[in-house]
Amino acid sequence: MSNTFGNLFRLTSFGESHGPGVGGVVDGMPAGIEVDTDFIQAELNRRRPGQSRLTTPRKEDDRVEILSGVFEGRTTGCPIGFLVRNANQHSNDYDNIRDLYRPSHADFTYTRKYGLRDHRGGGRSSARETIARCVGGALAKLALRQLGIQITAYTSQVGSIALPHDYRHYDLTLTESNDVRCPDTEKAVEMAALISEVKAAGDTIGGVITCVVQGCPVGLGEPAFGKLHAALGGAMLSINAVKGFEYGLGFAGACQRGSEQNDEFYNDNGRISTRTNRSGGIQGGISNGQDIYFRVAFKPVATLLMEQKTVTTDGTETRLTARGRHDACVLPRAVPVVEAMAAMTVLDYYLLNRTTLL
Amino acid sequence: MSNTFGNLFRLTSFGESHGPGVGGVVDGMPAGIEVDTDFIQAELNRRRPGQSRLTTPRKEDDRVEILSGVFEGRTTGCPIGFLVRNANQHSNDYDNIRDLYRPSHADFTYTRKYGLRDHRGGGRSSARETIARCVGGALAKLALRQLGIQITAYTSQVGSIALPHDYRHYDLTLTESNDVRCPDTEKAVEMAALISEVKAAGDTIGGVITCVVQGCPVGLGEPAFGKLHAALGGAMLSINAVKGFEYGLGFAGACQRGSEQNDEFYNDNGRISTRTNRSGGIQGGISNGQDIYFRVAFKPVATLLMEQKTVTTDGTETRLTARGRHDACVLPRAVPVVEAMAAMTVLDYYLLNRTTLL
Amino acid sequence: MSNTFGNLFRLTSFGESHGPGVGGVVDGMPAGIEVDTDFIQAELNRRRPGQSRLTTPRKEDDRVEILSGVFEGRTTGCPIGFLVRNANQHSNDYDNIRDLYRPSHADFTYTRKYGLRDHRGGGRSSARETIARCVGGALAKLALRQLGIQITAYTSQVGSIALPHDYRHYDLTLTESNDVRCPDTEKAVEMAALISEVKAAGDTIGGVITCVVQGCPVGLGEPAFGKLHAALGGAMLSINAVKGFEYGLGFAGACQRGSEQNDEFYNDNGRISTRTNRSGGIQGGISNGQDIYFRVAFKPVATLLMEQKTVTTDGTETRLTARGRHDACVLPRAVPVVEAMAAMTVLDYYLLNRTTLL
Amino acid sequence: MSNTFGNLFRLTSFGESHGPGVGGVVDGMPAGIEVDTDFIQAELNRRRPGQSRLTTPRKEDDRVEILSGVFEGRTTGCPIGFLVRNANQHSNDYDNIRDLYRPSHADFTYTRKYGLRDHRGGGRSSARETIARCVGGALAKLALRQLGIQITAYTSQVGSIALPHDYRHYDLTLTESNDVRCPDTEKAVEMAALISEVKAAGDTIGGVITCVVQGCPVGLGEPAFGKLHAALGGAMLSINAVKGFEYGLGFAGACQRGSEQNDEFYNDNGRISTRTNRSGGIQGGISNGQDIYFRVAFKPVATLLMEQKTVTTDGTETRLTARGRHDACVLPRAVPVVEAMAAMTVLDYYLLNRTTLL
Repeated sequence: MSNTFGNLFRLTSFGESHGPGVGGVVDGMPAGIEVDTDFIQAELNRRRPGQSRLTTPRKEDDRVEILSGVFEGRTTGCPIGFLVRNANQHSNDYDNIRDLYRPSHADFTYTRKYGLRDHRGGGRSSARETIARCVGGALAKLALRQLGIQITAYTSQVGSIALPHDYRHYDLTLTESNDVRCPDTEKAVEMAALISEVKAAGDTIGGVITCVVQGCPVGLGEPAFGKLHAALGGAMLSINAVKGFEYGLGFAGACQRGSEQNDEFYNDNGRISTRTNRSGGIQGGISNGQDIYFRVAFKPVATLLMEQKTVTTDGTETRLTARGRHDACVLPRAVPVVEAMAAMTVLDYYLLNRTTLL
Repeated sequence: MSNTFGNLFRLTSFGESHGPGVGGVVDGMPAGIEVDTDFIQAELNRRRPGQSRLTTPRKEDDRVEILSGVFEGRTTGCPIGFLVRNANQHSNDYDNIRDLYRPSHADFTYTRKYGLRDHRGGGRSSARETIARCVGGALAKLALRQLGIQITAYTSQVGSIALPHDYRHYDLTLTESNDVRCPDTEKAVEMAALISEVKAAGDTIGGVITCVVQGCPVGLGEPAFGKLHAALGGAMLSINAVKGFEYGLGFAGACQRGSEQNDEFYNDNGRISTRTNRSGGIQGGISNGQDIYFRVAFKPVATLLMEQKTVTTDGTETRLTARGRHDACVLPRAVPVVEAMAAMTVLDYYLLNRTTLL
Repeated sequence: MSNTFGNLFRLTSFGESHGPGVGGVVDGMPAGIEVDTDFIQAELNRRRPGQSRLTTPRKEDDRVEILSGVFEGRTTGCPIGFLVRNANQHSNDYDNIRDLYRPSHADFTYTRKYGLRDHRGGGRSSARETIARCVGGALAKLALRQLGIQITAYTSQVGSIALPHDYRHYDLTLTESNDVRCPDTEKAVEMAALISEVKAAGDTIGGVITCVVQGCPVGLGEPAFGKLHAALGGAMLSINAVKGFEYGLGFAGACQRGSEQNDEFYNDNGRISTRTNRSGGIQGGISNGQDIYFRVAFKPVATLLMEQKTVTTDGTETRLTARGRHDACVLPRAVPVVEAMAAMTVLDYYLLNRTTLL
Repeated sequence: MSNTFGNLFRLTSFGESHGPGVGGVVDGMPAGIEVDTDFIQAELNRRRPGQSRLTTPRKEDDRVEILSGVFEGRTTGCPIGFLVRNANQHSNDYDNIRDLYRPSHADFTYTRKYGLRDHRGGGRSSARETIARCVGGALAKLALRQLGIQITAYTSQVGSIALPHDYRHYDLTLTESNDVRCPDTEKAVEMAALISEVKAAGDTIGGVITCVVQGCPVGLGEPAFGKLHAALGGAMLSINAVKGFEYGLGFAGACQRGSEQNDEFYNDNGRISTRTNRSGGIQGGISNGQDIYFRVAFKPVATLLMEQKTVTTDGTETRLTARGRHDACVLPRAVPVVEAMAAMTVLDYYLLNRTTLL
């Protein structure tokens, strides 16, 4: 069941890094939505390898083919199958890891759990799996667009270089203006320089992505175990390399007093609203009509182009220097993945909320 | 579907703060497990109100009655229904909030989503709902005990008072030795003083709980959307007042380089292991046999015994000073809830992993 | 997961025949529905033992207590917990079956599957479990009532005594006028006589229940695996003692040609309709606005008050004559259970259909 | 959610009759199973159109491509994506039904539910969707083969020509020896003649398929709502054109007395068994180690090559004579589909049963 995401809007994904391709099935997409295939491809292009100096030079066209569920340009309510063929595989780059475990990769755990693994490019544990998430997310965004809900993510931290302000301070349309996907164009230059430096050293670096959901109506979220932020958190933590999730004031808010953190209600010209939004747009697990914002922590990429100690599958100690084409920092390409998971979650909970009242 | 948690080991919960009681149904509990009812009650007692000076003076016996699924002291494989009756309700304490929205509570969102709400004690959004989690968690612990898996949580931060070391530095058996549930007995005194000070001011304070899973075998976790840490994160974020989750090095690790964070493998007398455990016991979403550890951020309790601005349900601006019996800091009583959610998650994934190979 | 029924409207049930009680949790009940507790109790009374000469003399009040999810007479959208305490247990009646397997009961399979069983009154495999279904069904009916959807079942066959006509021929309000729950009052007398005769012989008898759903709008049902009749069939087959399900012309229609069975469309004063309804109100798995009707086959009750051969749990061949209080024919009391399962299914699919279009 | 089948072994399917293709994703396939691709293709060939005089002349190669989840000939535990491209489409054959509703087809209900439909070849409601079921079923059979569980279906009735005996009387290996897939080779000739006669008349005919599961261990099935026969029934009723399901003695058994129908236990050389198997291999919803057998009723195909009355989408009454290539009797090609659904169900419940005991 682990390859299906969602309750009513559901993505089932499949595919390995060096197999025939990566794809999926979106079930529960509302009928009658116009399918803008250029938009879907554009979303995929945002996560595509080789898109800038900062990312892996693996060149993949990553062309998505829609296999079902769309008729004369509109969704039919039937499942939407899709496939992205793998093309630019250099499987031989991985011959040297066939019989050893790369540090902080899934090689060891997959082998022990399943009794075997497809070692080429990390197989199923490769971040190439997120292709399916981006397609699912693009479809969800097409539906959310009709509802006036926007989802925007950006790189807010690389290593120790962090944006000093929260999302309200920035013009988020600048996010796509640079390779780092950071709306603070000055910090973006610093971040890019750090990534280049780390890359030159054969090393990698982590960071944080911030995401904002705007235009979300009141009422999305299902207490007790289906709180909206629990769903968002579970979604984000399922993305490769994610180590943490916080919304609203998050960990920083744990230091505060209630009198500092509560959001008081007021009457905003006939509409009940809050003057502050420390809650992050969710109260009691249900969206309250304010912006929803959250932060997602990514660890540094585990593949290093420098020597590391490790063991072979039979336990012999050895040393490994990775070959192949790898990202030194996953953040820029993970921005659309974060958006995709948020979009699917919000649409799913929008649909769930449709069943609250008769 | 939001009131059911889990895939194979499932808790379905019900109940409001001021209704007849809180209870639930555990489905998927393995058959043949000895049911130690004293242990279950003891776990409930750890979250019971009124257990110390630091918690709400609401006095509830919180006696759990097992209604099914146990025969001659052992689980039968049939669903385990249970009920904890509410007793010490002071529903009148809430008359003044019937027609207004408490800041940073779920009053507004519930009313808008459902068209009505049970305002007494927060109704379903009350943390009294976590009673069902503790019972479910206690049952899960009874099964995990047979498997040699231990789950231990403790208060690691209250306000800005944070433990300086990680869990390996402490004797976790000291956690229950003080009212704060902190294994650092000196810091516990400071934390208790801070809670008392905040409480005297009618204010509240947040904090962080750390949890460790020990003895977990290799192989638990289901990629891609069912990564073990994604399930743990979703579980923790579903607990009232939780705002963040991180495992391994979490947000701090986002600042690091891969060469600082990777866990190298070595041969530990014939057993493949890692010298460090920065990954937090999970790689590629699957447990690797090392300790699993994570941190959970709690916001300060929203109910303040000081005046706040707010609005009535018809939008009139007004002021509110809470009455009733409330915690100034939820952390000490949330420790068993964190453990309970972790226990249910780990057992659920243990059972899922049983179906990986024929 | 087996003790939860439904997708959006979900019943989770628990309880054994001779434990403290039987109950459940209804999750996903729409908010704002008026809860007529007298109606719920009346539905339970229709399945209650001891209600007529024809049923088991076990006397149970079967009073249902609602534990949550209802506030000031209306549903709140929160889970509805409920409990029916067991009272009139004669557990000693079952001492003689503790160590043997009753023919065609679940004793053998439960023992082998779970390693142990609660032998008293059949434990969880007792039809007393259907109490929870009746409560869940009564709640579903309260919602369906607002939607103008009626569900009516009746006994259409006992042994070889079968009604000669289909449901359109009968005044279904007569169903509750006799103990057999058959709208053909003459046949009802014959059926009652047969049941009495069989009972006097210590034997039991099977039969068929017919059910009709009227007022169902077009559009309920989710192809491919969620066809409405597949859901109804799965629901009915989960009722104790059910051996078959057919809808529309069912097995009889398998003998026919397409030209005999197709339902031609016509224009009924501006509304598209069909002149015939051989399809049974469902086409392609989706309701078409016509009446939905189906038939459910029940085997004879397995408990006989006559001697049977069997074996003990250690394999020794022996003989058994049941003691205790048992139904000779389960049909009259199963009528409300069939209705309950149909009501929950139809409401669940009504809610699912709410998410088809934005 | 309706396009996913199963709990732990799960098939998600997609595809329309005249789109790019039909495919799916199998999730939860145990790791390490040898994948015999010739066998999978052979199973598909059993349902392929154009395989004999009796079936539709639509010629489709129906070549399946495995896209993931298999490495060096064995399953990896990762999801198995697969695709069968459509080839021999004559979409123009359907131009005449674009704006009208075919009697007893899903045209009307799909249009009303979704607001639009892909009219070409029935779109998603086409039985071409069962391709995905056959692939999923073939994979399940590969796993069941290791467990010694066999699943065999055959045509037991066409129109009024029914086999006089139950499955034990026949050599089921003869099933594939004739185009009807009937192990009674004499009756098969009669059935083939009837199908040819009906086909010549532009008409269609229904029938019954019987299925037997052999070698199933004791313990599969999850009471209360997850009874094994309820799962099998729901699975069968989800197949296009199915109108009824019965297991064991089914509807015929409803006429009987308990003393005629109970299966007495005896000691079969140290193994507890039953002398008769009227129960159909399941007691209390759990397999008892005997053969599981059931019958599935199919209505006649709705597409007739003769004139029928109907209406256009705007309600104008009209007449329709189908064009194109259609089966006069779906039974021969449905035999592998029944087996596939049974195989997936049994494997799913086998895996569920692995989690009953620690």
